[in-house]
Formats: sequence, structure tokens, C-alpha cells
Amino acid sequence: MSIRLRATFLDEISTDIPHQNWGVKEWDRDFAAMKEIGIDTVIMIRAGLEKFITYPSKILMEEFHCYEPPVDLVDMFLTLAEKYGMRFFFGTYVVSSNWYEDEADMEKRWDVERRLLDEVWERYGHRKAFGGWYLSKEIAEDNEPIVREFLRYSKHCKEISGNLPTIISPGMLGRKAWLPDDPAAHDMDFEAHERSWDKIMKTISGYVDIIAFQDGHVSYEELPTAMAINKRLADKYGIELWTNTESFDRDMPIRFLPIKWEKFRLKLKEAEKAGVESALTFEFSHFMSPNSMYQSAHGLYDRYKEFLEEQKKLDSSR
Amino acid sequence: MSIRLRATFLDEISTDIPHQNWGVKEWDRDFAAMKEIGIDTVIMIRAGLEKFITYPSKILMEEFHCYEPPVDLVDMFLTLAEKYGMRFFFGTYVVSSNWYEDEADMEKRWDVERRLLDEVWERYGHRKAFGGWYLSKEIAEDNEPIVREFLRYSKHCKEISGNLPTIISPGMLGRKAWLPDDPAAHDMDFEAHERSWDKIMKTISGYVDIIAFQDGHVSYEELPTAMAINKRLADKYGIELWTNTESFDRDMPIRFLPIKWEKFRLKLKEAEKAGVESALTFEFSHFMSPNSMYQSAHGLYDRYKEFLEEQKKLDSSR
Amino acid sequence: MSIRLRATFLDEISTDIPHQNWGVKEWDRDFAAMKEIGIDTVIMIRAGLEKFITYPSKILMEEFHCYEPPVDLVDMFLTLAEKYGMRFFFGTYVVSSNWYEDEADMEKRWDVERRLLDEVWERYGHRKAFGGWYLSKEIAEDNEPIVREFLRYSKHCKEISGNLPTIISPGMLGRKAWLPDDPAAHDMDFEAHERSWDKIMKTISGYVDIIAFQDGHVSYEELPTAMAINKRLADKYGIELWTNTESFDRDMPIRFLPIKWEKFRLKLKEAEKAGVESALTFEFSHFMSPNSMYQSAHGLYDRYKEFLEEQKKLDSSR
Repeated sequence: MSIRLRATFLDEISTDIPHQNWGVKEWDRDFAAMKEIGIDTVIMIRAGLEKFITYPSKILMEEFHCYEPPVDLVDMFLTLAEKYGMRFFFGTYVVSSNWYEDEADMEKRWDVERRLLDEVWERYGHRKAFGGWYLSKEIAEDNEPIVREFLRYSKHCKEISGNLPTIISPGMLGRKAWLPDDPAAHDMDFEAHERSWDKIMKTISGYVDIIAFQDGHVSYEELPTAMAINKRLADKYGIELWTNTESFDRDMPIRFLPIKWEKFRLKLKEAEKAGVESALTFEFSHFMSPNSMYQSAHGLYDRYKEFLEEQKKLDSSR
Repeated sequence: MSIRLRATFLDEISTDIPHQNWGVKEWDRDFAAMKEIGIDTVIMIRAGLEKFITYPSKILMEEFHCYEPPVDLVDMFLTLAEKYGMRFFFGTYVVSSNWYEDEADMEKRWDVERRLLDEVWERYGHRKAFGGWYLSKEIAEDNEPIVREFLRYSKHCKEISGNLPTIISPGMLGRKAWLPDDPAAHDMDFEAHERSWDKIMKTISGYVDIIAFQDGHVSYEELPTAMAINKRLADKYGIELWTNTESFDRDMPIRFLPIKWEKFRLKLKEAEKAGVESALTFEFSHFMSPNSMYQSAHGLYDRYKEFLEEQKKLDSSR
Repeated sequence: MSIRLRATFLDEISTDIPHQNWGVKEWDRDFAAMKEIGIDTVIMIRAGLEKFITYPSKILMEEFHCYEPPVDLVDMFLTLAEKYGMRFFFGTYVVSSNWYEDEADMEKRWDVERRLLDEVWERYGHRKAFGGWYLSKEIAEDNEPIVREFLRYSKHCKEISGNLPTIISPGMLGRKAWLPDDPAAHDMDFEAHERSWDKIMKTISGYVDIIAFQDGHVSYEELPTAMAINKRLADKYGIELWTNTESFDRDMPIRFLPIKWEKFRLKLKEAEKAGVESALTFEFSHFMSPNSMYQSAHGLYDRYKEFLEEQKKLDSSR
């Protein structure tokens, strides 16, 4: 079958994307728009970042002095996912904007983080839409402490939730991982990429169920090779491979506005050629929604709908 | 009583905020939206900056070769303020983008600037909505030449206008006064802040009636202490303390789009806890108006209206 | 007669302006809006840039491995230009974002580029709206290899197309050609500008029919002198002088949003004073269209329409 966009992140606790200030009415309308183009999975990108959090977690407010949020977003997202027949993935809490923090601190904090996962499951695990866990750290090459964290998290998540699926969405060190004028910038080292991810996938196989590589740091010319490597490795280790077809444009001085449809389409088609059937996007609500604050996202939505019709025709003529 | 947003800047001669290209119809609609959420004071941020000015001032066109503006904005703002029962503050002219200019030049220019204030009063002083003066320079710590200018300006403004109130809106040297990667960045030095503003307030007490500190350069964690200091000093010197609850987001790479509601609410609540009852914002029309070019401002407006209802309930239950 | 905006670029293959993701319906609506304010000429800024191209060119796909575009934009633009009675200029292909590339490469590539022009003429030359050629490289001072390229291109374009007009839109080294904090920034060197363009115009006279200097790198104070020089030189060499009245704002940190109407009006009026009757803009659809993704463009459109009425009254009262 041809490729489909079936999942999006929900980026309410954001690091770099300005906020839309939606209430439940606006979110309801946006879930309806997602549903209309076939999105059946929503992934909350993180439970919180530093002091700002998505639900009134006793543990986070006590241990990390987080602010009590004005709305329980987890409850709201679950309710909407249930209304629209979608699956919700819970993204884990991030203690610091500096992800690559001190390893000793990471080990020391695990006890709190483990209890936090228990709290989440206790509050929301019974909800019909609760469908899995997103491990929110992003790596682009082998990083032993974070891979160890992936293992620890996914083991515990699966244990408490009856083996619900886990997903990660790593980067890749393509040519656009650096700004064009950075002297360190270089073409993608495909061998290093394969070596790194062979090791990582071997380690996390059986614990992480789905990997959706971000496609935005890889130049259009590099994509076919990079995606072929990812597919080969995922098949080797029995991991489900999706693609994270980023819907924001990395090539423009305003960082970031919606991507040009031609580029989005090209990236989807390259993934399809590599044998990938499911795409995730970062993210629908800002960059390809008919409700987005960025009007060019409305156009991206319309173009994607037209493309979807083409894809359906292709499939039915097979 | 709980805190209320009661004033906004009007940023038509802008240093860093792109222009909306509104005519009188669009401005009328926006004053109506301000009125609806209880804004009763509008503050024109500056009469002009370098060559671009808000009204066809003979003095500015002759002395500084300013361009004749296509519209008399002062007249338009006064007319709308009168229509909606608001008070208008006139922001003083800024001769150069470099505010911290040569002191000798500042002294030499005073004669022209004094005549300019007379011209303003002669043209617009009889208008019903003319309610005060905004001294448009922004300092964050003691700066003797500018404090001397505040004195000189406020004395003259009060003298010609029958003691109409004067307001300033200074910055603070909080952690976000520097970009995160600036090696000079450091946490707020609360003692230095208190020392500096004790000296300034002592000097301007009796001449400057209202101070509304900008809250955007202070991290969320630093706000409670900084606001408590400001309140203590303002009470000591008999100055009215407002807060400038910035409605644009300083934490995002696009500089600047509307702030996340959760942060805006948090800052208002922190000011309220410190005993502040009146908030000013920079600024309504771009960042929290239902008419803004930035759609996320529409959401901020809706969220603020909901908050206002909560606040009213709180007040009536006291 | 007073100055009129009569042409706009079409920036679909963009270097720095995010894409609006319009389909043919949205483009149709936008051509109608152009027509309404008197635009009778549309200039496609480039046939392609590196791998992304505007029409399925066999030569570009074979020689430079370009991607097949999802839509034939040249055909679409021609169709709409025909529908609205406009003239279409074809902008030449750009092989690399680095325009000031190796001269030897430029010479070597000419054979392919010549055949590309033939292909364009063969595909689209019979179209009623095909009205001229835009030579898409931008220089601000004498650059021998590129001037040589202008000559080579314009000769061939005119030869195959029965002498259709050619246009260039160069920059100028005004004070805003550098960012304010660049130590190399300096005021415009009017003598150097005149010397440089006297030489260039002498060379291209008879081959390039129209020059429309970009007005955005020149400060408002420098514009009168710069435009007077351009007019003097253009008259001397029998070249038609237009102005490229940029409709985006170069003075703001977000690069780029629509310009403030007051500035746009000022620049048009300065050109008019220098004797220029026709303005081109970069570009209508993002920065001054009622359909733009940037809402402040809608206001710029409305203000320009009001201005147009004033201009018409001026002309009829003469």
C-alpha cells in the first residue's frame, strides 16, 4: 500500500514553536481535521519541560517545583482522542532543555521518574485511548546514556501498561543538521549512520517498537540512501519503521513556518520508495492544519487532501 | 481586588514590531475590542522615532527633517479614545534609536524638545481624552542622564498640563535580559536592582506618578522576588506601581509572536501576589487582539476573557 | 503621469520567502486581486533553483537531475495571465544559490543554458501572454562575468523570441545593504554607484530594455540621490527605468513581513519625484495581497487602493 500520514505530535509544551492559545473548542475542531485526513494516532511530545507541565502532577510539583497548569491537557487530549477514535501516546517528562545532561544526574533521578510513570498510568492508564508511550529524548547517533534511558523507560512502561507500544523519533546527521555557513557542516556519513544505528537498534530491539526518523536534517539528495539504510536495519532487528515527515520548512530564515508542499510530497514519496507505509509528522496543528495560526498550513492541508485522493486511486488500481 | 489589565501601548512608530497597516476602520474595531476586556487607558509609545512621526509636527519637520506622516495618528487615537471613554497618554519623541546617546547632545537639544512638548499641548491639550504623558525612554538600572531627562520632562509636562500624570515603563536586569548563550548572562542581582531603583525612585518621586516595570526579561522563577522589591520601593516613595505584562513571547526563536496564555496568566498572578492591581501590556493590538495579524493573539484574547470571568467571580465572592 | 505599481514578481521557487501552498484556485483569486489594482505584468522570478523547477523541463531533469515538479507553474501562470489580460516575463534558471560562482563553470554551462532557453521558447513561446524575459541574477555593482551573462542571455532571448523585452532588477549598495551592526556598513558611495552603473548600462544598452533597481538596501535619506543618478544614467543610455518598490520590511527582526504602508508610499513618491512612472514589486502575493498568509499584507493592499484613488485624482486635475 502507498504511504499514509497517520500520526502527529501534539506540541503543547514547546521548545521552539510559538503557542496558538487554543481552548478545548479549538482543539476539538483540530482533532476533527486530523481525522478527516486519516490521522489515527496523536503523540503528546512531552509531559512537561522544566517547570511547565501538561497535567497537575503531584510528583512534578513536589519534586521539581513545577507550576500547576491551568488545564489538564492529558485528560483533554485523551477525551478528544476517544471522541475521534484515535490512539494517544504519552510523551515522557523532560527535566532540562539540555537533554545531554550529566549521566550521574540521570541515574540519580530515575527513582523519581519511575514513580512519575506510575503516577501517569494510575491517573490515565484506564482511559480507552491510552495507546502507548513516546520516549521524548532525541538522539541522532549513538549516545550510551540516552540509549540506556530508552531501555529503562521502555521496560518500565511496558511492565506497568501490559506491553503497550513504545516509540522514538530520532534525528539523523544529514547535511542540514548544520547551518549552511557552519564550518563543521558536511555531507551525511552513511557508514557512520549505519554503524551507529545498527548498534542502537540491536540494543533497544524488543523494547522500542517503533522508530520514526526525522527527515528534516537530511538533504533531499541524501534521503533515498538514508531511508534505505533505516529500512534495512529496522527489518534486521524487527522494529517497525515509520518516517517523521516534518511539516515545517528548515530551508527558510523564519524558523519555522509551514513547509512547501512540493518538498513535503517529495519526502513522503522517498519514504514510500524505501518501503515505509506510515508517516508521523511534527506537527499537524501548527504546520498543516486548516486551523493553524499560519495560513500557509491551510494550503498544505488542501494539497495533502488532493494527494491522498491520488494515493487512493493508485492503491485501488493495483 | 484582583489584578486587571487596564492599559496597553499603541506601537505605531515601532522599533522591532512589524506594522499591521490598519486604517481608521481597523483601529476603531480594535479600540472596541480593548474596551470589551476593560482597557481604559491607551499609551502611544512615542511621538516619533528619528524621521518617522505620528503627527505633522512643524518643529519635528523643521528641526529634525522628519517626514510628514500620511495620517495624524495622535488625532485619530484621541478621537477613538473619546469614542470609547478611554484615557490617552502621549509618549515623547525619540531622536535616535540609540537611546543612551551623548549626554551633551541631550542637554543641547532640550530647548527644542521643550518647545515640542508645548506644541503637543497646544495642538491636543484641549482634547477630552488627553490624560497624561509617557516618558518613552527605557532604563533597567540607574542611568543618570536619562533619570535627569525624566525629571526635566515630567516637570515641564506637569507644568503645562495642569499636573497630568506621568508614567515610565522600565526594564529589569533579570536572567532573560541576555540571550541564553551570552556569556555575560547571569541570574538577577536582586540587591543591585533594589539599590538602583531606590536611588531612582527617590529622585523621581513627586514627578513620575506611575512605574510599570516590564516583566519579560525576568525569568518566571525570579519574578516573585523582583516584584516584591518593586512594590516595597514604590510604596516607600509614594509612586503608583503597575506591571507591564508583556504579551509577546521572549522564549521563542521567532522574535516576536504572541505569548503562551499559561505564561501570561502566571505573570499576572505573580504581580497580583505582590500587591499590584493594574497591568499595562506591550501590546494589545499585535499580541492579544482578536484583530491581530497573528492568529494566536486571537486565542490569547479569548483565554484572557475567560480569566476575567474567573477574576470577577473571585472578587464578588470575597 | 503619477507613478503606478504595474508589475510584480511571482516567487514560487524561493530562496528566502516561505511558501503559501496555493493551488490554481488560490492563484486565480490572486491574479484577480493584482488586476484590480492595475498590475498588468507578472514576472516569474526564476525557472528553477538548483533541483527545484517550475516546469517539467527535460533538459533540467536530464542535465542537472532536477526533480519533476508536481505542477507546471509556467503553464498555470501563462493561463492566468491570459485570463486577466496580463503580460508574463519568464525568469531564467539559476543553477546554484551561490550566484557569484566560478566564471569558468559559467562559460562551460552556457551551451546547456542556451538549449534551455530554446526549450522554453518551444514549449511556451506561442502563448499569447508570453511577453518577455527576466534575467534573474542580481548584482549591485559592476560584476564582469554576470554582465557578460546578461549580454549572452539577452541576445539569445531576443533572437529566438522576435526581440521580446528583457528586464533586470539589480540591488544598490546603500546603507542598508549591511546589517546595522556590521563593521563594514557605510553610507552609500554615490560616485561609485554612478561609475559602476554607467559602465554596466553602456555595456548592456540595446540588449537589456528595462532596469528596475531594488529600493530596499538604500536608506530613506539616500533614496532621492540614488534614484536621480539611476534616472540620469537610464536616460543617457536609452534604457527604460522602473523602480522595484519592495513590499517587505527590511527594518524588522522577522525577516521578512509586509512593509509599513508609510514607508512603501514614501518610496513610491521618491521614485515619482525622480521621474519614474512604473513600479515593480517584490512581491505582491506574500506582501501586499488580500490573500496573503500575512494579514498585514491585506492592510497594505487596502492602503494602496486608497492611494491609487488619490493618484487618479491628482492626474485628472492636472
